[in-house]
Amino acid sequence: MTTSHEVRLKQRPVGMPTAADFEMATVEVRPPAEGEVQVKNLYMSVDPYMRGRMIDRPSYVPPFELGAALQGGAVGEVVASGADGFKPGDIVSSMYGWREAFTAKAEHLQKIETHGLPVQAFLGVAGMPGLTAYVGLTRVAEMKAGDIVFVSAAAGAVGQVACQVARLKGCTVIGSAGGPEKTAFLREIGVDQVIDYKAEPDLKAALRRAAPKGIDVYFENVGGAHLEAALDSARPNGRFAICGMISIYNDERPEPGPPNLALIIGKRLRLQGFIVSDNFDLAPQFVAELSGWIKSGQFHYRETVDEGIAAAPGAFLKLFTGENIGKMLVKLA
Amino acid sequence: MTTSHEVRLKQRPVGMPTAADFEMATVEVRPPAEGEVQVKNLYMSVDPYMRGRMIDRPSYVPPFELGAALQGGAVGEVVASGADGFKPGDIVSSMYGWREAFTAKAEHLQKIETHGLPVQAFLGVAGMPGLTAYVGLTRVAEMKAGDIVFVSAAAGAVGQVACQVARLKGCTVIGSAGGPEKTAFLREIGVDQVIDYKAEPDLKAALRRAAPKGIDVYFENVGGAHLEAALDSARPNGRFAICGMISIYNDERPEPGPPNLALIIGKRLRLQGFIVSDNFDLAPQFVAELSGWIKSGQFHYRETVDEGIAAAPGAFLKLFTGENIGKMLVKLA
Repeated sequence: MTTSHEVRLKQRPVGMPTAADFEMATVEVRPPAEGEVQVKNLYMSVDPYMRGRMIDRPSYVPPFELGAALQGGAVGEVVASGADGFKPGDIVSSMYGWREAFTAKAEHLQKIETHGLPVQAFLGVAGMPGLTAYVGLTRVAEMKAGDIVFVSAAAGAVGQVACQVARLKGCTVIGSAGGPEKTAFLREIGVDQVIDYKAEPDLKAALRRAAPKGIDVYFENVGGAHLEAALDSARPNGRFAICGMISIYNDERPEPGPPNLALIIGKRLRLQGFIVSDNFDLAPQFVAELSGWIKSGQFHYRETVDEGIAAAPGAFLKLFTGENIGKMLVKLA
Repeated sequence: MTTSHEVRLKQRPVGMPTAADFEMATVEVRPPAEGEVQVKNLYMSVDPYMRGRMIDRPSYVPPFELGAALQGGAVGEVVASGADGFKPGDIVSSMYGWREAFTAKAEHLQKIETHGLPVQAFLGVAGMPGLTAYVGLTRVAEMKAGDIVFVSAAAGAVGQVACQVARLKGCTVIGSAGGPEKTAFLREIGVDQVIDYKAEPDLKAALRRAAPKGIDVYFENVGGAHLEAALDSARPNGRFAICGMISIYNDERPEPGPPNLALIIGKRLRLQGFIVSDNFDLAPQFVAELSGWIKSGQFHYRETVDEGIAAAPGAFLKLFTGENIGKMLVKLA
């Protein structure tokens, strides 16, 4: 039998999660039965949406269970297989994150075609966060060449892809992130106008300076003052892809929305919420396009990698304190 | 020469407008030159959107000028014509409201095909407010038979049409209005579930009771607590046609938006602002459909009519105190 360490949800966080909300456990992983595969995880993902699943409420995905290993994206290597089409050494992705190893039915795994990319890219730029950026801009916001595109949390896992997809598709890109290291990264990846929101007392004024002609598309990751600034700067018929509002995920009492929401009317704005999993049909097209851009040197990305399963809760918390640049990952093997 | 009384904007209102913001004037109306038409107004319209035009700011229509007659929808009768295609007795609509008579270029007038409806209907159910309701539901919200539709300010000029268009197109309708007279009217016009928002301490709870399965479409006229309740009750892939937010038009300091805006994401909601004037192409189709419904007795509507040009400022203020049922009009002749 193989031993695996896993991280479980011990109690539901109130406000900002703390280490006390998680607990480590050691479990035995049984060999695969017929139709099953045993996997050693190489990398696991931590993502902002997981905060919502820690709350016990109806949503588009069920809440995490207390006392059970947390779920989330992971990539791993097949170590034993009882299923046709899977053999040791194959690289697979799954939702069996927050654990070192597991045995699962083959239909819960996806074999990865790496297109020459490192495996962990399939948790980041080439995985769910990257596809989220691509779907949000191309399908939800119907971005077209020449648009002025504003991206919040622009140095994050989704934002770094959104900025570059917009640039590579002929748009002007304004990116907002917090602190000198992130804003320097945004300049490296070709963002036209960079806003350090932590250094700006008035984000509305900062966006007006960065985009004097206004914005056509807003890729929303943050909420709050960022949404208010985007509404203020939106041009007529602007399209907002509403992907996330990380600024409010840990609020114990929800903050009010922006006071200028009525601008939606006169400017004929469209605010459209979306979930990447409704749009997996775009994944093959996206990965093909992305791997081409990466190979030709037109696309760059960053990862922030912590090591070992015990680091997972801390890595998750970094998402909310803004300590990651690019995709936040935990390397497990 | 003909004499006309007109209402001018004397000063820009701060907060709720008062009588002191308006002034009456008497002007001479010259006979029509070549290409011009002289019109005696029969009815003029007061509409909530006019409040926005009283503010000096860039918007989709320019602000009203101080010291000049206010503009707005009016229907009148041609009394003299120097233009081909217009003869005394013709009924025309124009934006030369807030005055008893005027002379204007023929291209600023539209001859009305009444389809057997009374002329003032073309300021209400068959005019801009009615078309707004039709456009918002059919084009903006892409309403389809079987949808559960929530309409705020449901007993107003736009709302009364929205409720009935939804019902006649096979939807379940929930309407919100304030007070027993308006809610009784909503029951008369076949609204399935009626909410008296003035009698409800918790609008969210009231909408949950009225629409236990949730809502697919929200026709937004009000903003504030109504928008919050609609977000709360929205079903996945809900579509909100954002037409107006009358609750906030007189705010000196904008109220914050709803605290539950992040529901847009998980529910994949679409909030789309719109302006009726972008959608005049739908007018012939709408008027044809509407006149059929009215003639066959399937569609009922109300007007609130004040008399005389001097009553216009007071009629306008009633929009914000909620004293009108159906379309608010001023009869001029």
